Amino acid sequence: MIAVLAGGVGAARFLAGLVRAVGPGEEVTAVVNTGDDLELHGLHVSPDVDTVTYTLAGLVDPVNGWGIAGDSFEVLAALEQLGAPTWFRLGDRDLATHLYRTSRLRSGASLSAVTAELAARRGVRARILPMSDDPVRTRVKLAGGEEVEFQEYFVRRQHAVAVAGVRYAGALEASPAPGVLEALTSADLVVVAPSNPVLSIGPILAVPGIADLLERRRQEVVAISPIVAGRALKGPAARLLVELGSEASVVGIARALRRIAGTLVVDEADADLAPAIEAEGVACVVTATVMESVEVAARLACAVLEAGAARA
Amino acid sequence: MIAVLAGGVGAARFLAGLVRAVGPGEEVTAVVNTGDDLELHGLHVSPDVDTVTYTLAGLVDPVNGWGIAGDSFEVLAALEQLGAPTWFRLGDRDLATHLYRTSRLRSGASLSAVTAELAARRGVRARILPMSDDPVRTRVKLAGGEEVEFQEYFVRRQHAVAVAGVRYAGALEASPAPGVLEALTSADLVVVAPSNPVLSIGPILAVPGIADLLERRRQEVVAISPIVAGRALKGPAARLLVELGSEASVVGIARALRRIAGTLVVDEADADLAPAIEAEGVACVVTATVMESVEVAARLACAVLEAGAARA
Repeated sequence: MIAVLAGGVGAARFLAGLVRAVGPGEEVTAVVNTGDDLELHGLHVSPDVDTVTYTLAGLVDPVNGWGIAGDSFEVLAALEQLGAPTWFRLGDRDLATHLYRTSRLRSGASLSAVTAELAARRGVRARILPMSDDPVRTRVKLAGGEEVEFQEYFVRRQHAVAVAGVRYAGALEASPAPGVLEALTSADLVVVAPSNPVLSIGPILAVPGIADLLERRRQEVVAISPIVAGRALKGPAARLLVELGSEASVVGIARALRRIAGTLVVDEADADLAPAIEAEGVACVVTATVMESVEVAARLACAVLEAGAARA
Repeated sequence: MIAVLAGGVGAARFLAGLVRAVGPGEEVTAVVNTGDDLELHGLHVSPDVDTVTYTLAGLVDPVNGWGIAGDSFEVLAALEQLGAPTWFRLGDRDLATHLYRTSRLRSGASLSAVTAELAARRGVRARILPMSDDPVRTRVKLAGGEEVEFQEYFVRRQHAVAVAGVRYAGALEASPAPGVLEALTSADLVVVAPSNPVLSIGPILAVPGIADLLERRRQEVVAISPIVAGRALKGPAARLLVELGSEASVVGIARALRRIAGTLVVDEADADLAPAIEAEGVACVVTATVMESVEVAARLACAVLEAGAARA
């Protein structure tokens, strides 16, 4: 069994490749960030869990990398007419997911139970676990001093503002969701998907028990850099690393993850930085990491599996 | 100012006629049943309040009498694919109303505040008040002994089952919404719309303070019969009156409402029953009550206003 710590779009693409790369007998378990979950129009929205689920179900919008391909926006248009905030774009079919989730949560089901139901009903074979059933909320302190909710920073302000700090509210009181520690313990290999180390992986590692466990298994943990040639493929990872005092490079990623990951997979564009990564005490594997297609993602997954096997 | 106790479709049609019949200077206040409110997919749905609002906004589906004309059902189709219960038909634009309401309620707004916002945003001039901001839930005891929620009886079982009793759960602990008692006190005339006396008007009268107030003003309260020639124009009023030990006629309506209404307006088809109504201590006015168009509804409203003026 392979366990993957996962954020949103990049992680979902990697997971799709991994599912294709491993045999049908091999299990894949995704432990997904819920730090950017939010309540919207009274509904519980889990953006990363949904992105992973939609991608593995073959439903995801291929252009955005999130949402459902070909979705309509009838409800959003009507909400706009009512003067409700519509900066978070919710499609109609996407909305059905949030309605289903919210209804089940309010009737007492856990987030992990609902996540499993939604994945099963969409025909996903991989196991998708939210990192925790308890609320953990990533909060972003802006350079101006104001602290905002994650989606306020990420979507509404389009991560175009300087960040002074990030915290994971509720993390200390949270427990890993049922199955998370078991999966991370029994996995043959733990992969840290190419997700933002601060905004996507950070919340997972902040849930008590997870980082400690991975630290003890660090030789069997392989991370994939979300930074290629000094730039993030998507989102604010590069800028955020600099703003938080590190550097926007694969070396910055190695530093951010070295406590839990013994190996870092970087793109060929960063081959020259392999010695600097090794100098951080992290083994380096160089391969093509830009997942332009599910085939490339599957090849990346194979390289990651090989890197894991080599270290074991 | 005219105050109207209102249920769903019949009341909404009457209110549209009344708004047309009174001058622009005259206020209309609807006190609307919320006993059939329900939580659906985690959302707070107020069917009667919405039917009244949509009708007065000119948005209502003219065939059903509820929902929004020309609405799409993208979300419902997606919910169906997820295996969620979809017996309660929610259109996409209708859903925006419930999302807006639920979001505002969860942020601490009262149902009456949200109802006023939704009416204002849809351009409704009449004042729409939910009977209470507190939860009152009509529960129906079926002949088999089972007690079900109102919408389970009304929509899911299509009111095609025998009823042994009806109760209004929470009514004793509920208070009239802000403005309700004031409106019923200061109104020149109180109208009981042609709504089901047990399922639509009953919950309103069960909210402490309302029935007592109307009893004291009964000479200025004019009810319109929802039963014409022994049959309900819509819904289970006729069958329910019989099942609960009364009779399916305008006389049954007079008995059900005589405590609070000094006058009953009945259709020409029931002219011969006027003496039997008067024998119940209720004045009887005969006119056309079947609201095939807003013009007929406006004429009915004029007749009701005249009846009220004659009694004052």
